[in-house]
Amino acid sequence: MIEALVFDAYGTLYDVHSVVRRCESFWPGRGTALSAAWRSKQLEYTWLRSLMGRYAPFSQVTLEALRFACEAMKLPLGGEQERALMDEYTRLATFPEVASFLQKRSGRRAILSNGSPDMLDPLVAHSGLRFDAVLSVDEVGVYKPSPQVYELAVQRLRIAKERIGFVSSNCWDAIGAKAFGFQVYWVNRGSAPLDRLGFAPDGIVSSLQDLP
Amino acid sequence: MIEALVFDAYGTLYDVHSVVRRCESFWPGRGTALSAAWRSKQLEYTWLRSLMGRYAPFSQVTLEALRFACEAMKLPLGGEQERALMDEYTRLATFPEVASFLQKRSGRRAILSNGSPDMLDPLVAHSGLRFDAVLSVDEVGVYKPSPQVYELAVQRLRIAKERIGFVSSNCWDAIGAKAFGFQVYWVNRGSAPLDRLGFAPDGIVSSLQDLP
Repeated sequence: MIEALVFDAYGTLYDVHSVVRRCESFWPGRGTALSAAWRSKQLEYTWLRSLMGRYAPFSQVTLEALRFACEAMKLPLGGEQERALMDEYTRLATFPEVASFLQKRSGRRAILSNGSPDMLDPLVAHSGLRFDAVLSVDEVGVYKPSPQVYELAVQRLRIAKERIGFVSSNCWDAIGAKAFGFQVYWVNRGSAPLDRLGFAPDGIVSSLQDLP
Repeated sequence: MIEALVFDAYGTLYDVHSVVRRCESFWPGRGTALSAAWRSKQLEYTWLRSLMGRYAPFSQVTLEALRFACEAMKLPLGGEQERALMDEYTRLATFPEVASFLQKRSGRRAILSNGSPDMLDPLVAHSGLRFDAVLSVDEVGVYKPSPQVYELAVQRLRIAKERIGFVSSNCWDAIGAKAFGFQVYWVNRGSAPLDRLGFAPDGIVSSLQDLP
Protein backbone atom coordinates (compact mmCIF):
# COMPACT_ATOMS: atom_id res chain seq x y z
CA MET A 1 0.00 0.00 0.00
CA ILE A 2 2.93 2.36 0.74
CA GLU A 3 4.60 3.18 -2.60
CA ALA A 4 7.39 5.42 -1.34
CA LEU A 5 9.06 6.41 1.90
CA VAL A 6 9.73 10.11 2.37
CA PHE A 7 12.21 11.08 5.08
CA ASP A 8 12.83 14.26 6.96
CA ALA A 9 16.58 14.99 6.92
CA TYR A 10 17.70 17.06 9.95
CA GLY A 11 17.20 15.14 13.18
CA THR A 12 15.79 12.08 11.40
CA LEU A 13 18.57 10.82 9.09
CA TYR A 14 21.24 13.35 10.08
CA ASP A 15 22.09 14.25 13.66
CA VAL A 16 22.07 18.04 13.99
CA HIS A 17 23.76 17.71 17.36
CA SER A 18 26.87 16.23 15.81
CA VAL A 19 28.00 19.89 15.72
CA VAL A 20 28.54 19.71 19.50
CA ARG A 21 32.19 18.65 19.20
CA ARG A 22 33.05 21.62 17.02
CA CYS A 23 31.14 23.97 19.35
CA GLU A 24 33.09 22.48 22.26
CA SER A 25 36.39 23.13 20.52
CA PHE A 26 35.56 26.85 20.35
CA TRP A 27 33.79 27.25 23.69
CA PRO A 28 34.71 24.42 26.08
CA GLY A 29 31.90 23.29 28.33
CA ARG A 30 29.23 25.16 26.34
CA GLY A 31 28.93 22.94 23.26
CA THR A 32 25.83 20.99 24.22
CA ALA A 33 23.94 24.07 25.41
CA LEU A 34 24.89 26.06 22.31
CA SER A 35 23.86 23.26 19.98
CA ALA A 36 20.46 23.03 21.68
CA ALA A 37 19.94 26.81 21.63
CA TRP A 38 21.02 27.03 17.99
CA ARG A 39 18.68 24.26 16.85
CA SER A 40 15.75 25.63 18.83
CA LYS A 41 16.18 29.15 17.38
CA GLN A 42 16.69 27.75 13.88
CA LEU A 43 13.29 26.05 14.00
CA GLU A 44 11.63 29.06 15.60
CA TYR A 45 12.90 31.30 12.79
CA THR A 46 11.57 28.93 10.11
CA TRP A 47 8.10 29.10 11.67
CA LEU A 48 8.17 32.85 12.24
CA ARG A 49 9.45 33.73 8.77
CA SER A 50 6.85 31.43 7.22
CA LEU A 51 4.03 33.06 9.17
CA MET A 52 5.33 36.54 8.34
CA GLY A 53 5.42 35.58 4.67
CA ARG A 54 9.15 36.42 4.66
CA TYR A 55 10.86 33.20 3.60
CA ALA A 56 14.65 33.14 3.55
CA PRO A 57 16.75 30.06 2.69
CA PHE A 58 17.67 27.64 5.47
CA SER A 59 21.35 28.52 5.14
CA GLN A 60 20.54 32.14 6.03
CA VAL A 61 18.12 31.18 8.81
CA THR A 62 20.65 28.75 10.27
CA LEU A 63 23.39 31.40 10.34
CA GLU A 64 21.05 33.99 11.85
CA ALA A 65 20.02 31.49 14.53
CA LEU A 66 23.68 30.78 15.32
CA ARG A 67 24.37 34.50 15.73
CA PHE A 68 21.39 34.92 18.03
CA ALA A 69 22.29 31.87 20.12
CA CYS A 70 25.90 33.00 20.57
CA GLU A 71 24.86 36.50 21.56
CA ALA A 72 22.28 35.15 24.02
CA MET A 73 24.96 32.89 25.58
CA LYS A 74 27.59 35.67 25.42
CA LEU A 75 29.93 33.57 23.27
CA PRO A 76 32.17 35.61 20.95
CA LEU A 77 31.50 34.51 17.37
CA GLY A 78 34.01 35.46 14.69
CA GLY A 79 34.08 34.78 10.97
CA GLU A 80 36.25 31.71 11.43
CA GLN A 81 33.84 30.09 13.88
CA GLU A 82 30.84 30.96 11.72
CA ARG A 83 32.35 29.33 8.66
CA ALA A 84 33.49 26.27 10.60
CA LEU A 85 30.10 25.72 12.24
CA MET A 86 28.13 26.29 9.04
CA ASP A 87 30.47 23.84 7.30
CA GLU A 88 29.62 21.24 9.94
CA TYR A 89 26.04 21.33 8.69
CA THR A 90 27.18 19.85 5.38
CA ARG A 91 28.94 16.99 7.19
CA LEU A 92 26.44 16.02 9.87
CA ALA A 93 26.72 12.42 11.03
CA THR A 94 23.92 10.02 10.14
CA PHE A 95 22.25 8.20 13.01
CA PRO A 96 23.82 4.75 13.54
CA GLU A 97 21.04 2.64 12.02
CA VAL A 98 20.38 4.78 8.93
CA ALA A 99 22.79 3.29 6.37
CA SER A 100 21.96 -0.36 7.10
CA PHE A 101 18.23 0.39 7.21
CA LEU A 102 18.30 2.04 3.79
CA GLN A 103 20.44 -0.76 2.37
CA LYS A 104 17.94 -3.44 3.40
CA ARG A 105 14.85 -1.59 2.12
CA SER A 106 13.83 -1.68 -1.48
CA GLY A 107 11.28 0.69 -3.01
CA ARG A 108 11.28 4.38 -3.79
CA ARG A 109 12.65 6.78 -1.23
CA ALA A 110 12.99 10.54 -1.01
CA ILE A 111 14.07 13.30 1.32
CA LEU A 112 11.71 16.22 2.05
CA SER A 113 13.63 18.82 4.00
CA ASN A 114 13.68 22.38 5.27
CA GLY A 115 17.26 22.53 4.00
CA SER A 116 18.04 24.79 1.08
CA PRO A 117 19.91 23.05 -1.77
CA ASP A 118 23.19 24.81 -0.87
CA MET A 119 23.15 22.96 2.47
CA LEU A 120 21.18 19.84 1.68
CA ASP A 121 22.86 18.64 -1.52
CA PRO A 122 26.42 18.62 -0.10
CA LEU A 123 25.14 16.92 3.05
CA VAL A 124 23.48 14.08 1.16
CA ALA A 125 26.50 13.69 -1.13
CA HIS A 126 28.88 13.61 1.84
CA SER A 127 26.86 10.94 3.61
CA GLY A 128 26.87 8.59 0.61
CA LEU A 129 23.15 7.84 1.04
CA ARG A 130 21.14 7.47 -2.19
CA PHE A 131 17.62 8.71 -2.83
CA ASP A 132 15.27 8.86 -5.79
CA ALA A 133 14.58 12.52 -5.00
CA VAL A 134 15.93 15.15 -2.62
CA LEU A 135 13.22 17.77 -2.22
CA SER A 136 13.67 21.14 -0.54
CA VAL A 137 11.05 23.54 0.81
CA ASP A 138 13.04 26.16 -1.07
CA GLU A 139 10.92 25.30 -4.13
CA VAL A 140 7.75 26.48 -2.42
CA GLY A 141 9.20 29.28 -0.29
CA VAL A 142 7.63 28.27 3.01
CA TYR A 143 8.75 25.91 5.80
CA LYS A 144 7.28 22.83 7.44
CA PRO A 145 4.64 22.17 8.67
CA SER A 146 2.86 24.12 5.92
CA PRO A 147 0.73 21.74 3.82
CA GLN A 148 2.37 23.27 0.72
CA VAL A 149 5.60 21.54 1.69
CA TYR A 150 4.06 18.07 1.98
CA GLU A 151 2.15 18.65 -1.27
CA LEU A 152 5.52 19.11 -2.99
CA ALA A 153 6.31 15.43 -2.38
CA VAL A 154 2.97 14.39 -3.88
CA GLN A 155 3.60 16.50 -6.98
CA ARG A 156 7.17 15.44 -7.52
CA LEU A 157 6.77 11.73 -6.76
CA ARG A 158 3.38 11.53 -8.49
CA ILE A 159 2.01 9.29 -5.77
CA ALA A 160 -1.27 9.85 -3.88
CA LYS A 161 -0.66 11.11 -0.37
CA GLU A 162 -2.31 8.10 1.26
CA ARG A 163 0.37 5.93 -0.35
CA ILE A 164 3.31 7.93 0.90
CA GLY A 165 4.95 6.83 4.14
CA PHE A 166 6.47 9.84 5.88
CA VAL A 167 9.16 9.41 8.52
CA SER A 168 10.32 12.15 10.90
CA SER A 169 11.97 12.43 14.29
CA ASN A 170 10.48 15.87 14.76
CA CYS A 171 7.11 15.28 16.36
CA TRP A 172 5.60 18.54 15.04
CA ASP A 173 6.73 17.57 11.51
CA ALA A 174 5.17 14.12 11.86
CA ILE A 175 1.92 15.69 13.06
CA GLY A 176 1.95 18.28 10.28
CA ALA A 177 2.43 15.49 7.73
CA LYS A 178 -0.41 13.51 9.30
CA ALA A 179 -2.73 16.52 9.17
CA PHE A 180 -1.85 16.75 5.47
CA GLY A 181 -2.74 13.12 4.87
CA PHE A 182 0.42 10.97 4.71
CA GLN A 183 0.90 7.67 6.50
CA VAL A 184 3.20 8.88 9.23
CA TYR A 185 5.82 7.35 11.51
CA TRP A 186 7.37 9.34 14.29
CA VAL A 187 10.88 8.22 15.20
CA ASN A 188 10.96 9.11 18.89
CA ARG A 189 14.58 8.34 19.76
CA GLY A 190 14.53 10.31 23.00
CA SER A 191 11.19 9.15 24.46
CA ALA A 192 9.75 12.65 24.22
CA PRO A 193 6.07 13.30 24.96
CA LEU A 194 3.70 13.51 22.01
CA ASP A 195 3.01 17.08 20.96
CA ARG A 196 -0.62 18.19 21.40
CA LEU A 197 -1.54 19.53 17.98
CA GLY A 198 -4.78 17.76 17.20
CA PHE A 199 -3.35 14.81 15.22
CA ALA A 200 -1.30 11.72 16.05
CA PRO A 201 1.17 9.76 13.92
CA ASP A 202 0.08 6.33 12.64
CA GLY A 203 3.05 4.75 14.37
CA ILE A 204 5.74 5.64 16.88
CA VAL A 205 9.09 3.84 16.76
CA SER A 206 12.33 4.30 18.68
CA SER A 207 14.59 3.88 15.64
CA LEU A 208 14.29 3.41 11.88
CA GLN A 209 14.87 -0.31 12.37
CA ASP A 210 11.50 -0.64 14.07
CA LEU A 211 9.57 0.71 11.07
CA PRO A 212 7.02 -1.82 9.78
CA MET B 1 1.70 61.40 13.68
CA ILE B 2 0.84 58.36 15.82
CA GLU B 3 -2.96 58.25 16.17
CA ALA B 4 -3.28 55.17 18.38
CA LEU B 5 -1.13 52.87 20.49
CA VAL B 6 -1.77 49.15 20.08
CA PHE B 7 -0.39 46.87 22.78
CA ASP B 8 0.41 43.21 22.87
CA ALA B 9 -1.10 41.71 26.04
CA TYR B 10 0.80 38.62 27.25
CA GLY B 11 4.33 39.49 28.27
CA THR B 12 3.88 43.20 27.47
CA LEU B 13 1.10 44.46 29.74
CA TYR B 14 0.50 41.23 31.67
CA ASP B 15 3.26 39.09 33.14
CA VAL B 16 2.72 35.48 32.04
CA HIS B 17 5.27 34.36 34.60
CA SER B 18 3.10 35.53 37.45
CA VAL B 19 1.82 31.92 37.33
CA VAL B 20 5.10 30.80 38.92
CA ARG B 21 3.80 31.07 42.47
CA ARG B 22 0.86 28.81 41.74
CA CYS B 23 3.11 26.34 39.92
CA GLU B 24 5.42 26.36 42.96
CA SER B 25 2.52 25.58 45.28
CA PHE B 26 1.83 22.38 43.33
CA TRP B 27 5.42 21.36 42.50
CA PRO B 28 7.90 23.03 44.88
CA GLY B 29 11.19 23.98 43.28
CA ARG B 30 9.88 23.49 39.74
CA GLY B 31 7.67 26.55 39.31
CA THR B 32 10.06 28.75 37.36
CA ALA B 33 11.12 25.96 35.01
CA LEU B 34 7.53 24.88 34.41
CA SER B 35 6.38 28.41 33.70
CA ALA B 36 9.18 28.85 31.13
CA ALA B 37 8.48 25.48 29.45
CA TRP B 38 4.74 26.17 29.39
CA ARG B 39 5.13 29.61 27.81
CA SER B 40 7.65 28.36 25.26
CA LYS B 41 5.41 25.48 24.16
CA GLN B 42 2.36 27.74 24.10
CA LEU B 43 4.03 30.03 21.57
CA GLU B 44 5.40 27.11 19.55
CA TYR B 45 1.91 25.63 19.25
CA THR B 46 0.46 28.96 18.04
CA TRP B 47 3.06 29.08 15.26
CA LEU B 48 2.71 25.42 14.31
CA ARG B 49 -1.08 25.41 14.24
CA SER B 50 -1.09 28.60 12.17
CA LEU B 51 1.33 27.10 9.65
CA MET B 52 -0.66 23.85 9.52
CA GLY B 53 -3.83 25.85 8.89
CA ARG B 54 -5.31 24.26 12.03
CA TYR B 55 -6.16 27.17 14.27
CA ALA B 56 -7.52 26.42 17.73
CA PRO B 57 -8.36 29.07 20.37
CA PHE B 58 -5.62 30.23 22.71
CA SER B 59 -7.40 28.71 25.70
CA GLN B 60 -7.10 25.26 24.08
CA VAL B 61 -3.52 25.82 22.94
CA THR B 62 -2.54 27.05 26.41
CA LEU B 63 -4.03 23.98 28.09
CA GLU B 64 -2.39 21.62 25.59
CA ALA B 65 0.96 23.33 26.16
CA LEU B 66 0.55 22.93 29.91
CA ARG B 67 -0.15 19.22 29.51
CA PHE B 68 2.91 18.78 27.30
CA ALA B 69 5.18 20.74 29.64
CA CYS B 70 4.07 18.77 32.70
CA GLU B 71 4.55 15.45 30.93
CA ALA B 72 8.00 16.49 29.69
CA MET B 73 8.98 17.50 33.23
CA LYS B 74 7.29 14.42 34.74
CA LEU B 75 4.98 16.51 36.92
CA PRO B 76 1.64 14.85 37.69
CA LEU B 77 -1.14 17.12 36.44
CA GLY B 78 -4.67 16.50 37.71
CA GLY B 79 -7.94 18.28 36.94
CA GLU B 80 -7.61 20.49 40.00
CA GLN B 81 -4.16 21.76 38.99
CA GLU B 82 -5.27 22.29 35.39
CA ARG B 83 -8.22 24.41 36.43
CA ALA B 84 -6.19 26.41 38.95
CA LEU B 85 -3.38 27.15 36.49
CA MET B 86 -5.71 28.05 33.63
CA ASP B 87 -7.58 30.34 36.05
CA GLU B 88 -4.31 32.11 36.80
CA TYR B 89 -4.22 33.20 33.18
CA THR B 90 -7.31 35.35 33.76
CA ARG B 91 -5.63 37.03 36.75
CA LEU B 92 -2.11 37.67 35.51
CA ALA B 93 -0.35 40.57 37.20
CA THR B 94 0.34 43.69 35.16
CA PHE B 95 3.94 44.85 34.99
CA PRO B 96 4.64 47.53 37.64
CA GLU B 97 4.68 50.56 35.34
CA VAL B 98 1.63 49.69 33.22
CA ALA B 99 -1.19 51.34 35.18
CA SER B 100 0.57 54.66 35.75
CA PHE B 101 1.81 54.76 32.16
CA LEU B 102 -1.69 54.30 30.77
CA GLN B 103 -3.12 56.84 33.19
CA LYS B 104 -0.71 59.53 32.03
CA ARG B 105 -1.19 58.93 28.29
CA SER B 106 -4.09 60.35 26.38
CA GLY B 107 -5.10 59.17 22.90
CA ARG B 108 -6.65 56.03 21.55
CA ARG B 109 -5.31 52.72 22.76
CA ALA B 110 -6.09 49.10 21.99
CA ILE B 111 -4.96 45.57 22.74
CA LEU B 112 -4.12 43.19 19.90
CA SER B 113 -3.58 39.74 21.37
CA ASN B 114 -3.22 36.04 20.67
CA GLY B 115 -5.67 35.49 23.52
CA SER B 116 -9.10 34.15 22.73
CA PRO B 117 -11.96 36.22 24.19
CA ASP B 118 -12.68 33.59 26.87
CA MET B 119 -9.21 34.27 28.33
CA LEU B 120 -8.57 37.84 27.30
CA ASP B 121 -11.81 39.57 28.31
CA PRO B 122 -11.76 38.35 31.95
CA LEU B 123 -8.05 39.24 32.17
CA VAL B 124 -8.55 42.82 31.02
CA ALA B 125 -11.62 43.22 33.26
CA HIS B 126 -9.74 41.85 36.29
CA SER B 127 -6.83 44.22 35.74
CA GLY B 128 -9.05 47.31 35.65
CA LEU B 129 -7.18 48.70 32.61
CA ARG B 130 -9.33 50.50 30.02
CA PHE B 131 -8.95 50.32 26.25
CA ASP B 132 -10.86 51.61 23.26
CA ALA B 133 -10.71 48.14 21.71
CA VAL B 134 -9.61 44.68 22.79
CA LEU B 135 -8.86 42.74 19.61
CA SER B 136 -8.24 39.01 19.45
CA VAL B 137 -6.62 36.94 16.69
CA ASP B 138 -9.62 34.67 17.17
CA GLU B 139 -11.46 36.86 14.67
CA VAL B 140 -9.05 35.96 11.87
CA GLY B 141 -8.24 32.38 12.92
CA VAL B 142 -4.47 32.64 12.71
CA TYR B 143 -1.82 33.71 15.22
CA LYS B 144 0.88 36.38 15.30
CA PRO B 145 3.09 37.19 13.44
CA SER B 146 0.77 36.63 10.46
CA PRO B 147 0.12 39.96 8.69
CA GLN B 148 -3.61 39.14 8.85
CA VAL B 149 -3.47 39.73 12.59
CA TYR B 150 -1.91 43.19 12.35
CA GLU B 151 -4.32 44.07 9.54
CA LEU B 152 -7.16 43.44 11.99
CA ALA B 153 -6.07 46.49 14.01
CA VAL B 154 -6.04 48.65 10.88
CA GLN B 155 -9.53 47.51 9.95
CA ARG B 156 -11.05 47.87 13.37
CA LEU B 157 -9.40 51.15 14.36
CA ARG B 158 -9.75 52.64 10.85
CA ILE B 159 -6.28 54.16 11.07
CA ALA B 160 -3.55 53.79 8.43
CA LYS B 161 -0.85 51.38 9.57
CA GLU B 162 1.89 54.03 9.45
CA ARG B 163 -0.05 55.95 12.10
CA ILE B 164 -0.37 53.05 14.51
CA GLY B 165 2.26 52.69 17.23
CA PHE B 166 2.62 49.04 18.17
CA VAL B 167 4.18 48.01 21.47
CA SER B 168 5.32 44.50 22.33
CA SER B 169 7.79 42.81 24.68
CA ASN B 170 7.97 39.82 22.37
CA CYS B 171 10.74 40.62 19.93
CA TRP B 172 9.35 38.35 17.19
CA ASP B 173 5.95 40.08 17.55
CA ALA B 174 7.58 43.52 17.31
CA ILE B 175 9.46 42.41 14.19
CA GLY B 176 6.35 40.88 12.63
CA ALA B 177 4.47 44.13 13.25
CA LYS B 178 7.34 46.11 11.72
CA ALA B 179 7.36 43.88 8.63
CA PHE B 180 3.64 44.61 8.35
CA GLY B 181 4.21 48.36 8.50
CA PHE B 182 3.43 49.69 11.99
CA GLN B 183 5.61 52.10 13.94
CA VAL B 184 7.03 49.61 16.41
CA TYR B 185 8.52 49.76 19.89
CA TRP B 186 10.07 46.68 21.45
CA VAL B 187 9.91 46.66 25.24
CA ASN B 188 13.05 44.69 26.05
CA ARG B 189 12.74 44.32 29.83
CA GLY B 190 15.26 41.50 30.06
CA SER B 191 18.04 42.87 27.78
CA ALA B 192 17.53 40.01 25.31
CA PRO B 193 19.38 40.01 21.96
CA LEU B 194 17.46 41.26 18.94
CA ASP B 195 15.96 38.44 16.91
CA ARG B 196 17.39 38.06 13.38
CA LEU B 197 14.30 38.10 11.20
CA GLY B 198 15.11 40.69 8.58
CA PHE B 199 13.47 43.72 10.26
CA ALA B 200 14.19 45.85 13.30
CA PRO B 201 11.81 47.81 15.58
CA ASP B 202 11.80 51.60 15.29
CA GLY B 203 12.68 51.87 18.96
CA ILE B 204 13.82 49.68 21.83
CA VAL B 205 12.94 50.62 25.40
CA SER B 206 13.44 48.89 28.73
CA SER B 207 9.99 49.71 30.08
CA LEU B 208 6.77 51.38 28.93
CA GLN B 209 7.84 54.56 30.75
CA ASP B 210 10.65 55.07 28.25
CA LEU B 211 8.30 55.17 25.26
CA PRO B 212 8.58 58.48 23.37
